[in-house]
Amino acid sequence: MSVALTEKLIEDVRLLIKDQDRDTLGKLIFEMQPADVADLAEQLEHEERLYIIELLMPEEAGEVLLEMEPPVQERILDSLDAEAITKIVQELDSDDAADLVGDLPAERVKEIIDSVQTEVREELQKLLPFPEDTAGGLMALEYVAVNANATVQEAIEKLRKKREEVENLYSVFVVDDYSRLSGAVSLKDLVLEPPDRKIKDIMNPEILSVDVDTDQEEVARLFQKYDLVSVPVVDDQHRLIGRITHDDIMDVIEEEADEDMSMMAGVMHQEIGEESPLRISRARLPWLIVGLFGGILAAVVINQFESSLEKVIALSFFFPVIMAMGGNTGIQAATVAVRGLATGDISLVGFGRRIVVEMKVAFLNGLVCAVILGLVVSIWLADILIGSVVALSLILIILNACFIGASVPLVLKRLNIDPALATGPFVTTTNDIISLFIYLLLMSGLFRFSA
Amino acid sequence: MSVALTEKLIEDVRLLIKDQDRDTLGKLIFEMQPADVADLAEQLEHEERLYIIELLMPEEAGEVLLEMEPPVQERILDSLDAEAITKIVQELDSDDAADLVGDLPAERVKEIIDSVQTEVREELQKLLPFPEDTAGGLMALEYVAVNANATVQEAIEKLRKKREEVENLYSVFVVDDYSRLSGAVSLKDLVLEPPDRKIKDIMNPEILSVDVDTDQEEVARLFQKYDLVSVPVVDDQHRLIGRITHDDIMDVIEEEADEDMSMMAGVMHQEIGEESPLRISRARLPWLIVGLFGGILAAVVINQFESSLEKVIALSFFFPVIMAMGGNTGIQAATVAVRGLATGDISLVGFGRRIVVEMKVAFLNGLVCAVILGLVVSIWLADILIGSVVALSLILIILNACFIGASVPLVLKRLNIDPALATGPFVTTTNDIISLFIYLLLMSGLFRFSA
Repeated sequence: MSVALTEKLIEDVRLLIKDQDRDTLGKLIFEMQPADVADLAEQLEHEERLYIIELLMPEEAGEVLLEMEPPVQERILDSLDAEAITKIVQELDSDDAADLVGDLPAERVKEIIDSVQTEVREELQKLLPFPEDTAGGLMALEYVAVNANATVQEAIEKLRKKREEVENLYSVFVVDDYSRLSGAVSLKDLVLEPPDRKIKDIMNPEILSVDVDTDQEEVARLFQKYDLVSVPVVDDQHRLIGRITHDDIMDVIEEEADEDMSMMAGVMHQEIGEESPLRISRARLPWLIVGLFGGILAAVVINQFESSLEKVIALSFFFPVIMAMGGNTGIQAATVAVRGLATGDISLVGFGRRIVVEMKVAFLNGLVCAVILGLVVSIWLADILIGSVVALSLILIILNACFIGASVPLVLKRLNIDPALATGPFVTTTNDIISLFIYLLLMSGLFRFSA
Repeated sequence: MSVALTEKLIEDVRLLIKDQDRDTLGKLIFEMQPADVADLAEQLEHEERLYIIELLMPEEAGEVLLEMEPPVQERILDSLDAEAITKIVQELDSDDAADLVGDLPAERVKEIIDSVQTEVREELQKLLPFPEDTAGGLMALEYVAVNANATVQEAIEKLRKKREEVENLYSVFVVDDYSRLSGAVSLKDLVLEPPDRKIKDIMNPEILSVDVDTDQEEVARLFQKYDLVSVPVVDDQHRLIGRITHDDIMDVIEEEADEDMSMMAGVMHQEIGEESPLRISRARLPWLIVGLFGGILAAVVINQFESSLEKVIALSFFFPVIMAMGGNTGIQAATVAVRGLATGDISLVGFGRRIVVEMKVAFLNGLVCAVILGLVVSIWLADILIGSVVALSLILIILNACFIGASVPLVLKRLNIDPALATGPFVTTTNDIISLFIYLLLMSGLFRFSA
């Protein structure tokens, strides 16, 4: 059953751990789902977490570990000895085992691989070489495959043999005599077709598969686009080598969105769950330093126009509004482009069309904002000329920021760089500086002209 | 098969439409998946899209429409007559039919409900009242349920009757004599257990279900947390009334992440696919206006310190860096809090602990940035006193921004307001103004003290 995480529950667990009351705590925990135990453990101190993990059977401990935030998981694995980890790894599905072991330091990986059962060792050696963010890194080796010439009855027998091993089974894959993927049969058809029917007569031969080196973002897009629940993974000879299921993909979708947002905000991806202020600081600081030096550069730019500022000190009053408008416009355009590229709704096809729409939007918004700001400044400074030039510069600033915001993600994508970079501090800082420059240039031009 | 969208394909399709070559175009389109046809159509003009939709059979047309971006879908539905929509709606799954009809204007909904088959009408009347973003809005009425006292063989017969109607079937739900949900049997067990076994002996009674009025974000969290592929929906009497499947949830996860990012950037949710510059402008403008008036307010604040500015005009050089540092710090803290709350990794439990960590991070980062900026300013202006006060104000600004960024999402959540609001222009603008105020206040204090 799903258990609500409350302050009370946390306090109770803390007390039980303090009293070393293994029996009561064990009963409480055994009734909970692994994901709930993980959530609970995340609210505890490190030593308390270890106490709970050591209380669990290896299989449950593994499932709880897998549900924990990466930084918490890492710390616990650091504290467990190789024997404990080995026991846990042996109980997990191949993909989960590889994920857990893959994050350990190289010498510990070796230690564990040397001590696990042969079968698990072979699975790990197959899976560990694949990069984490590819189809190979996501796939599990647990699946059911039958030859196209088998009968429904034979397929059911095969299924029976793998009954315990393969969880979340939705279809049986079909291969030819050379292990090449040739189709799939849904469990629904297996239930309903007569036992002596040939698999090849009832299989769907148009099944989608992914290459082992496909990027995980691309795999997630296929799942979403074609509403898949599992997909077979093939090697370069189109031989079936693994299977990816929807539960891993839900995590990828979330992870990719988180990555984009982290990039946008300049924080560490997967920072959630990290508890060390030092590590969080180290992850955020680089982005702040970018902003810091951008700001110092902006100061240098402003300094070039000191004489104009001395003439009308009120020019500096509008630095914030100028920067905010450039920044906001740029982020709006960049965010839509980045999300569109990530979800596949915007492609590099139709690049020009997209920029044209964005520039029209910028012109409309620029016009409205410029009229408002122009009026405010004209009245405040009692100078229509200055008001008009502020308005004009605001339009130019918004057009520029929108163009940069909309085009940089597309350019980055074409260069195979993560487009989300365009929403981050680099581009925003650049926009700030260009915006100030446009504003001050037009203003000093006005003063020179009117002088 | 999956078809790559290329400029060439788009051009070919355009030519075929221009030549009214229905046969060739039809053959081309029939070989494509609905999602690919939708992607292709999104790159075409409105009239061309209509030509393709009218070329398709109602079922395919419906599936293509469902895969389109909402603004594109809406425009096409506007152009189709009630008869065409009726034909399409009759071919769709109940949840998709309700989604499509639910977005139409009220008078058109009535027209369509009056003209569909009785069975479809009853389904629509059941589903339409549920809010779109709840379990009721997501669920479909297509599922297979058997009584706990039935045998495996009877369950298989029931499955056979619904074979065509229910797609994506992963398990059979089990109900008692009053239609109350009492468990589920996986298709795997149905294949493998003997035909005369009682369902109640093989079912899993610990099955998770959701109430019909559960928020979709909460439903998505359950799917992710417990790796679900489908979940039964129950009413307040715990009677089984519908089923939600993973494909809808993948869309929800993406949608919720998009919503958070849109809020962060101040753009319209689901703006992607919108083509009218006027509508995009209308959606983005309110956020720009917030920034605009925030900026004007900042100008008013600066104006209060005009005498200090007149003394040292260089004070204004550092407005950009002060604003950027406050803004970036605030967004970093807010984004982590918002994503953590959205994914459930941060809960209101442990609020205080989280703020303490954030303040430690802010102090570390503030110290590093303050030392750098303090040095730069001291050397530039050849005035260690001013440099030190700039440094001190930067620390205070970063502490303040981090506190606001980390705590506002948690407060909003407690007030049942979307925490993502905290990453948007409102909070950033507030941070800008407070930052400038802190900076100018300390500076004018210095001048008064040293005068």
